[in-house]
Amino acid sequence: MSGIMRLGFVEVLVNNLSQARNFYSQILGLQETRNGDGTLFFKCWDEYDHHSVVLKEGKGPGLVRVGWKVESERDLDELEKKIEEFGIKVNRISKKEVTAVGEGLSFTAPSGQPMILYHEIEQVGRAVVPPEIIPKGLVGISPPHLDHVVISAEDADEAVKFMTSVLGFRVGEQILDPAGHSVASFLFRSNKPHDLAIMRGPHGRYHHFAFYLDDWNEVLRASQLLAQSHQDVEVPPSQHGITRGCTTYFRDLSGNRIETFAGGYVTYPDFPTITWSIEDMKRAVFNFGGPGNLEKFMQWV
Amino acid sequence: MSGIMRLGFVEVLVNNLSQARNFYSQILGLQETRNGDGTLFFKCWDEYDHHSVVLKEGKGPGLVRVGWKVESERDLDELEKKIEEFGIKVNRISKKEVTAVGEGLSFTAPSGQPMILYHEIEQVGRAVVPPEIIPKGLVGISPPHLDHVVISAEDADEAVKFMTSVLGFRVGEQILDPAGHSVASFLFRSNKPHDLAIMRGPHGRYHHFAFYLDDWNEVLRASQLLAQSHQDVEVPPSQHGITRGCTTYFRDLSGNRIETFAGGYVTYPDFPTITWSIEDMKRAVFNFGGPGNLEKFMQWV
Amino acid sequence: MSGIMRLGFVEVLVNNLSQARNFYSQILGLQETRNGDGTLFFKCWDEYDHHSVVLKEGKGPGLVRVGWKVESERDLDELEKKIEEFGIKVNRISKKEVTAVGEGLSFTAPSGQPMILYHEIEQVGRAVVPPEIIPKGLVGISPPHLDHVVISAEDADEAVKFMTSVLGFRVGEQILDPAGHSVASFLFRSNKPHDLAIMRGPHGRYHHFAFYLDDWNEVLRASQLLAQSHQDVEVPPSQHGITRGCTTYFRDLSGNRIETFAGGYVTYPDFPTITWSIEDMKRAVFNFGGPGNLEKFMQWV
Amino acid sequence: MSGIMRLGFVEVLVNNLSQARNFYSQILGLQETRNGDGTLFFKCWDEYDHHSVVLKEGKGPGLVRVGWKVESERDLDELEKKIEEFGIKVNRISKKEVTAVGEGLSFTAPSGQPMILYHEIEQVGRAVVPPEIIPKGLVGISPPHLDHVVISAEDADEAVKFMTSVLGFRVGEQILDPAGHSVASFLFRSNKPHDLAIMRGPHGRYHHFAFYLDDWNEVLRASQLLAQSHQDVEVPPSQHGITRGCTTYFRDLSGNRIETFAGGYVTYPDFPTITWSIEDMKRAVFNFGGPGNLEKFMQWV
Repeated sequence: MSGIMRLGFVEVLVNNLSQARNFYSQILGLQETRNGDGTLFFKCWDEYDHHSVVLKEGKGPGLVRVGWKVESERDLDELEKKIEEFGIKVNRISKKEVTAVGEGLSFTAPSGQPMILYHEIEQVGRAVVPPEIIPKGLVGISPPHLDHVVISAEDADEAVKFMTSVLGFRVGEQILDPAGHSVASFLFRSNKPHDLAIMRGPHGRYHHFAFYLDDWNEVLRASQLLAQSHQDVEVPPSQHGITRGCTTYFRDLSGNRIETFAGGYVTYPDFPTITWSIEDMKRAVFNFGGPGNLEKFMQWV
Repeated sequence: MSGIMRLGFVEVLVNNLSQARNFYSQILGLQETRNGDGTLFFKCWDEYDHHSVVLKEGKGPGLVRVGWKVESERDLDELEKKIEEFGIKVNRISKKEVTAVGEGLSFTAPSGQPMILYHEIEQVGRAVVPPEIIPKGLVGISPPHLDHVVISAEDADEAVKFMTSVLGFRVGEQILDPAGHSVASFLFRSNKPHDLAIMRGPHGRYHHFAFYLDDWNEVLRASQLLAQSHQDVEVPPSQHGITRGCTTYFRDLSGNRIETFAGGYVTYPDFPTITWSIEDMKRAVFNFGGPGNLEKFMQWV
Repeated sequence: MSGIMRLGFVEVLVNNLSQARNFYSQILGLQETRNGDGTLFFKCWDEYDHHSVVLKEGKGPGLVRVGWKVESERDLDELEKKIEEFGIKVNRISKKEVTAVGEGLSFTAPSGQPMILYHEIEQVGRAVVPPEIIPKGLVGISPPHLDHVVISAEDADEAVKFMTSVLGFRVGEQILDPAGHSVASFLFRSNKPHDLAIMRGPHGRYHHFAFYLDDWNEVLRASQLLAQSHQDVEVPPSQHGITRGCTTYFRDLSGNRIETFAGGYVTYPDFPTITWSIEDMKRAVFNFGGPGNLEKFMQWV
Repeated sequence: MSGIMRLGFVEVLVNNLSQARNFYSQILGLQETRNGDGTLFFKCWDEYDHHSVVLKEGKGPGLVRVGWKVESERDLDELEKKIEEFGIKVNRISKKEVTAVGEGLSFTAPSGQPMILYHEIEQVGRAVVPPEIIPKGLVGISPPHLDHVVISAEDADEAVKFMTSVLGFRVGEQILDPAGHSVASFLFRSNKPHDLAIMRGPHGRYHHFAFYLDDWNEVLRASQLLAQSHQDVEVPPSQHGITRGCTTYFRDLSGNRIETFAGGYVTYPDFPTITWSIEDMKRAVFNFGGPGNLEKFMQWV
């Protein structure tokens, strides 16, 4: 079994599709790949799959589902078995039941978020070909790729156990309470510091999804572009203690929280988990600085 | 007349000289040039005058005085006359009355801060010689030079009038209240966006003094070093609307507020003053982000 | 007397005005302010004068003249006298004889380059107003302002003497030959490391003119944009020993050499001149790296 | 089978161990973990294995061997079989036969470089623990981790075939000659743009090994530190077309070529191979700029 390759897409609810379209294409700088049935599909310029972000018109903000792309078709069979062994019901998705996506598995994580697994998805290609390496005329923040998603779990230990023992994630860093239970766990399948984080919180909610930026200068540029577009920057440029990544957070017009994330270390399957005590929570989350309005930042979407 | 060349030094009160010594030399990364009589003298590595920061043991935090270096001895005579014509009493300082400094003028600005003007000061030289351009073994934040100081004035209009009509400063940017009175004015004598700012506030106080950093990356590095030294970052990396400079603010151990400032535009005597209305105050001060604790940041030292 | 404020404009010859227009507006990212009589006028986005670059159709590349803006009309009278006392003939320019420029002085420097001095020029304003601080929709490299020009002189000592004793420049850094004669001198009137450099070479020629960029990241971006536009980068991103500035050099389509320059230290009238010996020439020019084709880079325009 | 996790270490020949020690510890900024029997072991500050660089006293420069760390002990058995099926002789290494390393496999790649595979290696831990995220007192370039190695092959197609079909690498980018044969192939096992590159060249040689740096500013800092230490920068800061990474190259005192590499995209098993034609070779290697001395840069170590 090879398993999950990456966070394939996040699908979220937005209140007004045409306003959202402007935000996601002109300010965030994603590329629209399809528009239909009250749904918009976007990809980042350096991605080749059909979409990494899906916006569904509805009562936003909110998470519709998370899509994970697996390495091979065979993974679907094996993971179906393992998920069911964990006691979770799995539904088979037929080809094109999910726009642009092939056959897959649909289930709800123990922490309550709907997820799908798939291997096949329409290929639209990157936005640049040799000898060019960066597309001309990028607008807005224009991150190269989707990076990770952070979800909540009433029982974070159980949610981590599912993601690690069944879906093959590893724990890069964690904050444990004095009793040794997970308050927050940062999980990777790739060599990035995290593809998914699980934080203790309400059932079925999420905190943010994140796009990758090349470096600290791009984080500044993101904040400048948001200011220029009269968008609030919920967390101005800062650095996480956990992951060591540089960061800025903001909201789309419906309130979905988005992070742009840069840097961070490289992980491998043998990465020794870094454990933070809850007393160092503040530095774990922000090495310095942080949100102007902490209470608002602590709210789950 | 040529007049004031630059902000020569700031002298502030600190509670504990040996703790301050460690902070200013190891964390801020200044170079100590003299230590005596309950006073410490520091310069930045790229400065050649004897000192740009003086720490005096006492009941800190607080501003003792601001020193301005003039271009020629002759400026002292002419400025003495002009200051007195404005109705302000001037005292002559004899050579070495102020450590390492030659003859000068001492007076109190209409806004209440003690200031001195001088042309002569001991030369200690920059910390590097060709073919080297950056000293080896710099420690801490190690800014290349002192940049500006921000003081308060009950009547900011009058304070600005004194600094411009008498001391030859020009107004680069200003925030005016609806009646057209200065709430904050940013003044330059050099080609920097400001050497001095005057903000409406209590008589005789100051807000911060600032060191220059090369760029946004150095601002990050400053914050990282402060975090590493368990020092609070009062304003994490952000960007001013006024001056366009990148910034971070923190305090020394006695509570003196220090900014590290990078970037900003170039000014000339014909620079058209940029005027902000008070409704845009927030963006004028921070293009995005800002202090976690606004009330604390609004406190004068 | 206050004297020269800044390098006002450079006027150069280009072979094909419409090709040059595309290069200067789309790749370099300047803003066209006038087009007429075989001449194109450009300014940078953060400049407020009518132009800082003039392109004249002709047999390029080549320098037509250098314009220096003085602080007051009165400076013109005083400088006229001083230039003539140095033994150089001065012609009065009447208003609008030079497009968009008021009355002025015209003369040829001892090193052979035509120069004009002027105080008045049409004001077109910066490209941004509060609360915005960076214009929307900038294209190409888009430097905020013109920075300096480097000219050649058969007798560099004499050329430096003229620029310092008559026009009030100061020498920030210099490379001297073993006999103590200037091989290259870097002169400032502002607080920048140089507004003008004079290097030993043929009579009446120039090496390059330079635009300012905010930092090392902008230097990378400039090189990327040039590569994307299939323009050669004559000197890829590097750092000067002299001035400590970060740099990249390239040519316009006619062969005029352009530098984009970032960083560097702050100077003041009391800046102690830094002298390099000719043995350290290589590090003086490039702290590391440098042009791929040194012979080509050594050619004067 | 899980297979190779990462480039574990490179072992190279140096002429003078004490000079090399100074270079690798003080200028490159690695951490020495062992010194004995004419061999020095180093790791980067963010690595936890005993070593990633081994220096062996001898007639340098030259490659002794490349070590690959596999995910599990079981991988050794499976890879042994696959390597032998490819027709290559494999020797078993017993525990501690290679300093600090457990049992493993030793073989020579079809391209002539000695390689070992191992799972077990002494753990020394990262150089920092929470709440700190960056060690205090780092000296020199101090890269966080080893990144990749570039080797030569007379038959690059065959070498690529071995690395992909036997060792499980994937081809991220390649330059093909008009007949469709590999001139250069960039292979990954992780999510980095490359862990290994194979370029057509002499049997058994290498071009360089590379350390990771966080960003373009760190690449500048590396060049500055080299200049400050009077070390030549063989390739000043530039950007690769292939991998999109920022780069600088230099040599140790024996002539081993070292790259510091920053940025680059993320890869996954489904990454669509990017193919460059040989006409775009120059942009493939350097998007702009490149080595001052191309002939010297083309020499294999």
